[in-house]
Amino acid sequence: MTETRTDPGTTGAVAARDPATAGFVFNHTMLRIKDARASLDFYTRVLGFSLLRSTDFPEAAFSLYFLALVDDLSAMPADPEARQHWIAGLQGVLELTHNHGTEDQDGPVYHDGNSEPRGFGHICLSVPDLRATCARLEALGVPFQKRLEDGRMKHLAFIKDPDGYWIELIQPSPLV
Amino acid sequence: MTETRTDPGTTGAVAARDPATAGFVFNHTMLRIKDARASLDFYTRVLGFSLLRSTDFPEAAFSLYFLALVDDLSAMPADPEARQHWIAGLQGVLELTHNHGTEDQDGPVYHDGNSEPRGFGHICLSVPDLRATCARLEALGVPFQKRLEDGRMKHLAFIKDPDGYWIELIQPSPLV
Repeated sequence: MTETRTDPGTTGAVAARDPATAGFVFNHTMLRIKDARASLDFYTRVLGFSLLRSTDFPEAAFSLYFLALVDDLSAMPADPEARQHWIAGLQGVLELTHNHGTEDQDGPVYHDGNSEPRGFGHICLSVPDLRATCARLEALGVPFQKRLEDGRMKHLAFIKDPDGYWIELIQPSPLV
Repeated sequence: MTETRTDPGTTGAVAARDPATAGFVFNHTMLRIKDARASLDFYTRVLGFSLLRSTDFPEAAFSLYFLALVDDLSAMPADPEARQHWIAGLQGVLELTHNHGTEDQDGPVYHDGNSEPRGFGHICLSVPDLRATCARLEALGVPFQKRLEDGRMKHLAFIKDPDGYWIELIQPSPLV
């Protein structure tokens, strides 16, 4: 693409794709969660993710959950090893890590990255009908970080997951 | 899926997909970066991402970069608005936020989430040939958090991006 940016020092920083990276897939993003029950409920019931795989490590007292927005689950292998490899080829997987016992702590356990020390910002879902989605999430009692009508950016919203992680919501078409 | 987990309290937490979530796409993950030049170089030259869109906000002194591992860029619209909507429909997009001037600060600017206060853990790429990829990354001088041979998990590695964010590397097939 044409590099005409005003961000100082970035011109020329973008390289053409090395053939050695062919077939690379951005598979997943991992977030730690306080309460597996709350997060599984939120990501499946509220946001439509499917739980594709979970693995418990009882000796180390943690569990991993792999979720994704999959339109057709019929392609997913039943065999555990085949399924694991199938999941590894997907894009847009969310891995949730639950350290057992954190659900019994008082208050928030994890840091959302948007106050000091900052780093991670948010994940983002695009949805076909953003206004209808926001109305549904309001009705479900989901907390908003930014409603459509808040601030200057009227075409996007932010909700918060059970740990307070920000989830941006956008629509891949003009918002009318 | 069958819910036979040993993580206490999670049985029954997974809901069937609500039709209201049809068409939802896990579009992107946003990370703040200290130095746009360093991160654009790393994600394009080293990891094969393409820069699909960048937006500068000079008055607010920040820039956004949207990158993805796209095998065929010919489908990407040239028109900026059409392109923005096309990108919003993708999975596996990485959004990098650069607050102008952080590149001139000494030392790390952002928190990787893996020491206190913890939260975000990592992103993960799956690659067709993990051993060859790790050898290439070693040759390129990329720092490793965990090499294939380190620890008990011999089938995965972790590298660090220019801000120290962890990037897991896996292979969607048995590692022989």
